[in-house]
Amino acid sequence: MTALPGVKALVFDVFGTVVDWRTGVARELAAFLPAMGAGHLDPFALADAWRRRYQPAMEECRSGRRPFTRLDVLHRENLDAMLRENGVDLSRATAADLDHLNRAWHRLDPWPDVVLGLTRLKRRFFIAPLSNGNILLLANMAKRAGLPWDAILGAEPARAYKPQPEAYLNTADILGIAPDELCLVAAHNGDLAAARKAGLATAFVPRPTEHGEGQTIDLGPEQDWDVVAADFVDLAARTGAA
Amino acid sequence: MTALPGVKALVFDVFGTVVDWRTGVARELAAFLPAMGAGHLDPFALADAWRRRYQPAMEECRSGRRPFTRLDVLHRENLDAMLRENGVDLSRATAADLDHLNRAWHRLDPWPDVVLGLTRLKRRFFIAPLSNGNILLLANMAKRAGLPWDAILGAEPARAYKPQPEAYLNTADILGIAPDELCLVAAHNGDLAAARKAGLATAFVPRPTEHGEGQTIDLGPEQDWDVVAADFVDLAARTGAA
Repeated sequence: MTALPGVKALVFDVFGTVVDWRTGVARELAAFLPAMGAGHLDPFALADAWRRRYQPAMEECRSGRRPFTRLDVLHRENLDAMLRENGVDLSRATAADLDHLNRAWHRLDPWPDVVLGLTRLKRRFFIAPLSNGNILLLANMAKRAGLPWDAILGAEPARAYKPQPEAYLNTADILGIAPDELCLVAAHNGDLAAARKAGLATAFVPRPTEHGEGQTIDLGPEQDWDVVAADFVDLAARTGAA
Repeated sequence: MTALPGVKALVFDVFGTVVDWRTGVARELAAFLPAMGAGHLDPFALADAWRRRYQPAMEECRSGRRPFTRLDVLHRENLDAMLRENGVDLSRATAADLDHLNRAWHRLDPWPDVVLGLTRLKRRFFIAPLSNGNILLLANMAKRAGLPWDAILGAEPARAYKPQPEAYLNTADILGIAPDELCLVAAHNGDLAAARKAGLATAFVPRPTEHGEGQTIDLGPEQDWDVVAADFVDLAARTGAA
């Protein structure tokens, strides 16, 4: 039986689900740190430290304490704070150096199944990212990696950060479809739970090394999601898009 | 000498510049009218009548008399009004019929040079539509016609209709670049004049049959635009993207 029969569009979480952010960010930190006299620091630990500031920064916007601010801006503030916290002397870098490093998030590599899987899924579905990344970040990533999105959606056009319901509902509205005609594909049970609460269909794809070898969370589905697939190629097969 | 040396992104007017809206809309009206007992009406005249309601409808939003409303909604209101004005009995059509006809604007064909030209331009520039069409309209059009945009931009993510300056300036802001690093490509002198006033670079490409055989406007450049090209393939050659 073909999964997701009433679904017209698939939207994808990106950081972790589509791309391996941790390896990519650590790679760029490893290239940056020696010239800062900080070649002794562990780039993976710093990637994790940068990422730990992600949810609190968005929470300022979700709570209304700060107006909606695109992720490139939050990432840059978080980068400076994270480097300072780790004793890196920022005066040794130019603003252009730091802006370039900040765009490491624009230059992340997809997991190996992604391009083939998306190419197949695009035959049956409208496909787009539904990420907290901003439009430019997601578009630069797609251009570099060859991700065949039909449009670049997400927090910036929806003017809301996941897991706020508006992030999911405004995306369905932009696509001119009902929430249950839209399916979120994600490697994170929490994102899928919020999407389901908003009325979306849900697809889980595990990414068991997103956080490295010792990952303990999101190793498997925690609810009866509408589809569970091994990867994007398997998702295409299960939905009749292969 | 290569044109547009400091430009990083090209954004394109769509209706008229990228696609032949008049032929496409008339084709779908011609298929629709006979079943309505209105096969005697001229589908090209009706396409023009539908389009005449476009600027006044957007003006309601530009003036602030109405909140920003996406073009699919304005098009649908204008379609109903235009058909009634021409004596078509709307009670003979279902809402689904009219919604389908309204999406004729999602199914327009590009001019013959467009796909090759954009494919070449994409090698040197970030490319996106900057249209008053909404995201879904532009994305469906791109999917059907194979337009290789890097992102779907325009009035909906910018929350402003051209020629308001915010339509151009908010697009540069989304792309993280200065206005003069962004170039508008358009077949309409008025659109280019507004873009130049906002600080953008400008490229004119004539589309001398947009309004049919007897077209009298926009046959040539009316200011010294930064580039004037015969079509998109010529634009790629002039900008070193070929």
